[in-house]
Amino acid sequence: MFEAAGVAYDDVARRPVAEGGGIPAMQRLLADAPGLRPLAPPVLVHGARVIAQSAVICDYLAPLLGLVPEDEDSRLAARQLAATVADLVNETHDTHHPVASGWHYEQQRPEAAKRAAHFLEFRLPKFLAYFEAVLGDTDGPFLLGETLSYPDLSLFHTVDGIAYGFPNGWARVAAQVPRVRALCAQVQALEPVAAYLASERRLPFNEMGIFRRYPELDPA
Amino acid sequence: MFEAAGVAYDDVARRPVAEGGGIPAMQRLLADAPGLRPLAPPVLVHGARVIAQSAVICDYLAPLLGLVPEDEDSRLAARQLAATVADLVNETHDTHHPVASGWHYEQQRPEAAKRAAHFLEFRLPKFLAYFEAVLGDTDGPFLLGETLSYPDLSLFHTVDGIAYGFPNGWARVAAQVPRVRALCAQVQALEPVAAYLASERRLPFNEMGIFRRYPELDPA
Repeated sequence: MFEAAGVAYDDVARRPVAEGGGIPAMQRLLADAPGLRPLAPPVLVHGARVIAQSAVICDYLAPLLGLVPEDEDSRLAARQLAATVADLVNETHDTHHPVASGWHYEQQRPEAAKRAAHFLEFRLPKFLAYFEAVLGDTDGPFLLGETLSYPDLSLFHTVDGIAYGFPNGWARVAAQVPRVRALCAQVQALEPVAAYLASERRLPFNEMGIFRRYPELDPA
Repeated sequence: MFEAAGVAYDDVARRPVAEGGGIPAMQRLLADAPGLRPLAPPVLVHGARVIAQSAVICDYLAPLLGLVPEDEDSRLAARQLAATVADLVNETHDTHHPVASGWHYEQQRPEAAKRAAHFLEFRLPKFLAYFEAVLGDTDGPFLLGETLSYPDLSLFHTVDGIAYGFPNGWARVAAQVPRVRALCAQVQALEPVAAYLASERRLPFNEMGIFRRYPELDPA
């Protein structure tokens, strides 16, 4: 959201430890937060506020960054769309961690294979068909119609991650969701987003994050 | 939230079909919603608005029902707490559906046993310790301190469901979270909540909902 809005930010956990950043600095932020204690990252520090939970952070930032229209119906629609993208993200994560978030993937491979197969056959098409229908209702190019909003960013990133993790599974469903693909292409081509994606600030997808590529979970 | 606030509501899906309710009526609401189409129930119909996603519904209703203080810091805190309760609810659900939400429990019993064991040993204590710490920070009796808010209702219902589904697992952790137990007792004793719990409007926990009792998932 900061990158799309062209607003400067400080990614504390990625700043070098020698420059006062890194995991220790993040842990200090978690421990010393005024007000409600956060359970886990990510947290947003804005002035005296420390805010946890991705959905809450995005909803808080969106009007400040011009990433949601100000009328209440638009804000409500954006919240619902963001919540549904978040549900898809959760289910994508659980394909490689169906039994225990605290275990390694290698400790739950047979269960992951089952869950991933179900995800690719039923859940992913269901979510994508939903967003395709929403884009049909609004006639796009964005989820709210003509105005870019933060759920567009979330959906782009999520689809990008799923296409990374499941190139075969994504290929099977992609043809049925031309509006979703067009939205992703539009977001990706926004000048600040394109610059971000080409920079080292964008972490490449990897096998430690939410979106992972394990070929055995994505058979041809 | 309606019950706690003493505000009348119409539970469309539970109204008899002969009185224009039931699943068909709910499906018509989903299909005919103006504005953003909902993906799934629950949906709130309020005037011309149809709003899906539990977290969005609760956040929308809370100020209307007097179930959150009006200042922005309180609303942000309530949103974060509600999101964390929702994470706990999701993980509780997945104990009996770790592989595929579209399959029956009986089709994923071995995986459910593994996930439930991990949940009871690590995840449930982690979440409950978090809420216990929050209640320690605010000195209770409620999550925001002296004022009842909707995350208190969510946490009560969630703990109640977990105690139903996992009486042994709950018994092992209950002694360590006296403030959580005190909060639940306070919520349960609120006059409108007590009346609701004693009424037939409150569906008993069962093996078709989120909170289920399968003894094999909850060994002594």
